[in-house]
Amino acid sequence: MKKVAIIMGSDSDWPILKPAYEILKEFEIDAEILVDYAHRNPNTVRNFVLNSEKQGIKILIAGAGAAAHLPGVIASYTTLPVIGVPISSSVLKGLDALLSIVQMPSGIPVATMAIDGGKNAGLFALSILSVEDKMIADKLTEFRENQIKQVEEKNTAIQLNL
Amino acid sequence: MKKVAIIMGSDSDWPILKPAYEILKEFEIDAEILVDYAHRNPNTVRNFVLNSEKQGIKILIAGAGAAAHLPGVIASYTTLPVIGVPISSSVLKGLDALLSIVQMPSGIPVATMAIDGGKNAGLFALSILSVEDKMIADKLTEFRENQIKQVEEKNTAIQLNL
Amino acid sequence: MKKVAIIMGSDSDWPILKPAYEILKEFEIDAEILVDYAHRNPNTVRNFVLNSEKQGIKILIAGAGAAAHLPGVIASYTTLPVIGVPISSSVLKGLDALLSIVQMPSGIPVATMAIDGGKNAGLFALSILSVEDKMIADKLTEFRENQIKQVEEKNTAIQLNL
Amino acid sequence: MKKVAIIMGSDSDWPILKPAYEILKEFEIDAEILVDYAHRNPNTVRNFVLNSEKQGIKILIAGAGAAAHLPGVIASYTTLPVIGVPISSSVLKGLDALLSIVQMPSGIPVATMAIDGGKNAGLFALSILSVEDKMIADKLTEFRENQIKQVEEKNTAIQLNL
Amino acid sequence: MKKVAIIMGSDSDWPILKPAYEILKEFEIDAEILVDYAHRNPNTVRNFVLNSEKQGIKILIAGAGAAAHLPGVIASYTTLPVIGVPISSSVLKGLDALLSIVQMPSGIPVATMAIDGGKNAGLFALSILSVEDKMIADKLTEFRENQIKQVEEKNTAIQLNL
Amino acid sequence: MKKVAIIMGSDSDWPILKPAYEILKEFEIDAEILVDYAHRNPNTVRNFVLNSEKQGIKILIAGAGAAAHLPGVIASYTTLPVIGVPISSSVLKGLDALLSIVQMPSGIPVATMAIDGGKNAGLFALSILSVEDKMIADKLTEFRENQIKQVEEKNTAIQLNL
Amino acid sequence: MKKVAIIMGSDSDWPILKPAYEILKEFEIDAEILVDYAHRNPNTVRNFVLNSEKQGIKILIAGAGAAAHLPGVIASYTTLPVIGVPISSSVLKGLDALLSIVQMPSGIPVATMAIDGGKNAGLFALSILSVEDKMIADKLTEFRENQIKQVEEKNTAIQLNL
Amino acid sequence: MKKVAIIMGSDSDWPILKPAYEILKEFEIDAEILVDYAHRNPNTVRNFVLNSEKQGIKILIAGAGAAAHLPGVIASYTTLPVIGVPISSSVLKGLDALLSIVQMPSGIPVATMAIDGGKNAGLFALSILSVEDKMIADKLTEFRENQIKQVEEKNTAIQLNL
Repeated sequence: MKKVAIIMGSDSDWPILKPAYEILKEFEIDAEILVDYAHRNPNTVRNFVLNSEKQGIKILIAGAGAAAHLPGVIASYTTLPVIGVPISSSVLKGLDALLSIVQMPSGIPVATMAIDGGKNAGLFALSILSVEDKMIADKLTEFRENQIKQVEEKNTAIQLNL
Repeated sequence: MKKVAIIMGSDSDWPILKPAYEILKEFEIDAEILVDYAHRNPNTVRNFVLNSEKQGIKILIAGAGAAAHLPGVIASYTTLPVIGVPISSSVLKGLDALLSIVQMPSGIPVATMAIDGGKNAGLFALSILSVEDKMIADKLTEFRENQIKQVEEKNTAIQLNL
Repeated sequence: MKKVAIIMGSDSDWPILKPAYEILKEFEIDAEILVDYAHRNPNTVRNFVLNSEKQGIKILIAGAGAAAHLPGVIASYTTLPVIGVPISSSVLKGLDALLSIVQMPSGIPVATMAIDGGKNAGLFALSILSVEDKMIADKLTEFRENQIKQVEEKNTAIQLNL
Repeated sequence: MKKVAIIMGSDSDWPILKPAYEILKEFEIDAEILVDYAHRNPNTVRNFVLNSEKQGIKILIAGAGAAAHLPGVIASYTTLPVIGVPISSSVLKGLDALLSIVQMPSGIPVATMAIDGGKNAGLFALSILSVEDKMIADKLTEFRENQIKQVEEKNTAIQLNL
Repeated sequence: MKKVAIIMGSDSDWPILKPAYEILKEFEIDAEILVDYAHRNPNTVRNFVLNSEKQGIKILIAGAGAAAHLPGVIASYTTLPVIGVPISSSVLKGLDALLSIVQMPSGIPVATMAIDGGKNAGLFALSILSVEDKMIADKLTEFRENQIKQVEEKNTAIQLNL
Repeated sequence: MKKVAIIMGSDSDWPILKPAYEILKEFEIDAEILVDYAHRNPNTVRNFVLNSEKQGIKILIAGAGAAAHLPGVIASYTTLPVIGVPISSSVLKGLDALLSIVQMPSGIPVATMAIDGGKNAGLFALSILSVEDKMIADKLTEFRENQIKQVEEKNTAIQLNL
Repeated sequence: MKKVAIIMGSDSDWPILKPAYEILKEFEIDAEILVDYAHRNPNTVRNFVLNSEKQGIKILIAGAGAAAHLPGVIASYTTLPVIGVPISSSVLKGLDALLSIVQMPSGIPVATMAIDGGKNAGLFALSILSVEDKMIADKLTEFRENQIKQVEEKNTAIQLNL
Repeated sequence: MKKVAIIMGSDSDWPILKPAYEILKEFEIDAEILVDYAHRNPNTVRNFVLNSEKQGIKILIAGAGAAAHLPGVIASYTTLPVIGVPISSSVLKGLDALLSIVQMPSGIPVATMAIDGGKNAGLFALSILSVEDKMIADKLTEFRENQIKQVEEKNTAIQLNL
């Protein structure tokens, strides 16, 4: 069953959003991908979002750069959780995308991740799913423990090289 | 016959956009007003824009603050000229709105005015109409000459007070 | 049963976070409040978060200004969803808080809302809960429809005053 | 008959403005090019603009970087529509040019495009001309449909590579 | 004999530029005032600058806010020293004016003062005149010594209040 | 005896912090290194800091990029002097890290260095130790004199190449 | 015996630096005050700093706004620890002062506090002195415990008002 | 006879300031070079400036990056005109240097050029000297005319390549 949709403002955003796709797959969550510029193809985005619940989609991840309207436009069509990823594709290095995504008006929230924070979008989607799914919660705890191990290995490596 | 539409992201934006309405009226151009948050009421905005040509609308002016998606969303639904006005309603004083409006992706332009530049949006709409309308062009020239007179009066006033 | 915790970096942040509390109450979701500077009282924050799951807490909302570490610190202690609200309490008007909250490293996401976006934090928490709770989902849809009605009333009001 | 003028602050801005020239040519609109630093050669710019109407010019596109005064200076000499393109040629990456172009005083609007948004300047000029020219309007609609097709192809390409 | 011209982008800039006028008068240097929006009245500004040398003007001070083109436009018409004062009149608090004035292209310098630094513009003009005028140089030295005395008095005042 | 601890938010920060380690070694001060993401491994960081006094640590240097919470988190657990180094590892080039580190709330100071200013963190630690250690003070004076010599040599080199 | 010097760029900075003076007095540390614009009275600042060690001064706190050179100038004359406080006195709200103070070149560190962070400057001076003074260290620990109590009282107050 | 001094904050700034030196030489004005970090070698800078008038120096050009105090420190020691050049050597790309140089307090002006605007510093020095030196004024006019010719050639080149 499909669970999470990943929508991109441009196919050049894929390297930033692919880590979201991969972490979801690692947790065995289905992810549907849509490349669709909010501005160039507004009807397709709209139809996709309006039909998302029927498709079993629980969470939408949207990444975009510059005047990054995609996450906000999506949020205007659904009450499902929308996670936004600002992408540093313009000369302003994502500051424009960050403000375009995070400064949503009262009533229509978008959960904003760090600039280029694709992987965290996937992890936050898992964290949402973990609220009612003990298995995902346990896997997230395990993921964190692995992260700690990696940090400790890096610490050891530097100590050895002093 | 209706010519220009003025769409606001919030009714609190009206004081900024009213000067656009007034200058259009001064030039005897009909203006239609719509208060409609792009995010809160996306279908109404969409229907309004998709029907705008049939309503005789030639130009759309859209003002919004914060994550100011309204002008870009409108531009995605029409090839008519869209003029965007960033509004300084958030704590970031319109820098967020400016970047959200001006940094549109290639293919979907929005003509961006200064932060809180409502009157200039009206004037630019008139300037577009003047391309094929000699009477509006002449009135714009007259408007500029009046502006010069006012500047000269202010100059005289300061000289007298030295 | 307690569901959502709201943690503040300072009691002066309460007016920004109170709308989160109120919208949760409107949806009949229990909310627990904690005023606790991440830096001044780190052990209390830590204990609160480490025990949050046992207390039935599903989501944590954290608001802070300036070097706003509170949401990130909380996220480091739990895999529950953490929603961060940057607060415009410093002279930099929340730009510092926004960057401190949103720019989290890969592995530890914080879902960042707009500067001073307390109400949206509450709404996003509801949106998370709605993923598995049809009643909340329905109430959210109703909430959106009411928003549209209010927008339409504001639109009518401006039309009448032209 | 000449229709649109493209004026550059520096010949190094040509790669940014060439897409405007090309899209105009694609739509069979004549474009006149002028390379003329607003500051280095102010009299030539002034004479060019003051004579532009007589030359059949309907719209002026001006691109400049850093203290990008060119579009505003042009706008001060004409009531024709002026489209400004901020160029990211300075170390501040176009933020200086953006503010210099967009923050025009009330009375003298400049329609500002995205940083380095040369192609959109051409498209917006076409959109202005389309107001009274059904053929250009139809070609713009076709252009948008082609854009959608390209987006859909990119979408398919990513799906196939998953 | 006239020596220094002070040109304003708007009569509302006078409170910022008046201290320049007053310090010049204190040093017995004639100052001519012109209120003339660079954009609204470009021909008057141009004529004034082109004739400035004949009028005995040695230095031009120009203050402006927002897209503050005035100092740069003036500099494009003369090789006399031009001193620019960015004014914090827009919602961006002079950051726009600062970048518009200081980021001049190679070949056409403008000596930029602090935001709202009207008095320093007058003092810098005096410093230029002092290069070949011993009396002004001596008075500037005296002015600095008075400044030191005032600082020392403020120091004493605080010590006494501890 | 251990004196100074250097804690990194990531092993990729080591090239920035190594100069701190080296200048401390040059002054014969022991330095302990810890690589530990504040967010990924909060308990290890906490235990390290809570035990630092017992380990003879007098000063803690912490470097981090992006949402750089590490120095502030450390400061919340100790009254020892904490020196923070913002690191330019994110696309925002350290502006995010600078604000996250320097804008600490009243009550919990962090002594912030320049972006990527690892060596100065080491020098400032030495300057703290020099308050009660005449030998370190003398070595710091000598260090400064060497710096002057190097500057003078560079001056001579440029003069010779004119 | 004098221990800490507090130097201000302007007497209007006193309200920001007074909390530093007061916390030092609360800890029974002598503080000497000097109001002396780095630029207006450079010789007095220089003499004060060059003689500071002989006067028993161990640490220098310097606060300044705008082009806030004072802390860096002081640091260039001494190897004693220098603590800088950026002050939000200009229209740029201390962002200028922050960058002027924190971005010191390699070799001459200044320990920078938050914008308007006068009290933290005093607390950090105490933290430096605590390195070799057990009594100050104990009082700092007590100060932190009092802070926690105040936070807990504020927490209780909000709970009661729910 | 020496006329203009060029002082650098670092020998790595020489490529930015060399064009100032070269344009002065082209105009047959003597230039003296000093490489001297304001912070690392404050006494040499001070002595150089205090003796500059006796050495026949009329104008001082100072370039520096990051916390760019050099021009302001120089201005505090002399009433001669000081021209400041912010240099983009730090990760903040000269925004720090620009604010550190331009935001000088009332009483001590520094004439600030564009970021990396070394050549304009030389040209502005010539413009100052031209106030009382007809030959330099004439050469500056000639320089401007040559600039126009170059612009016109570039214009022709682009026209030919269309």
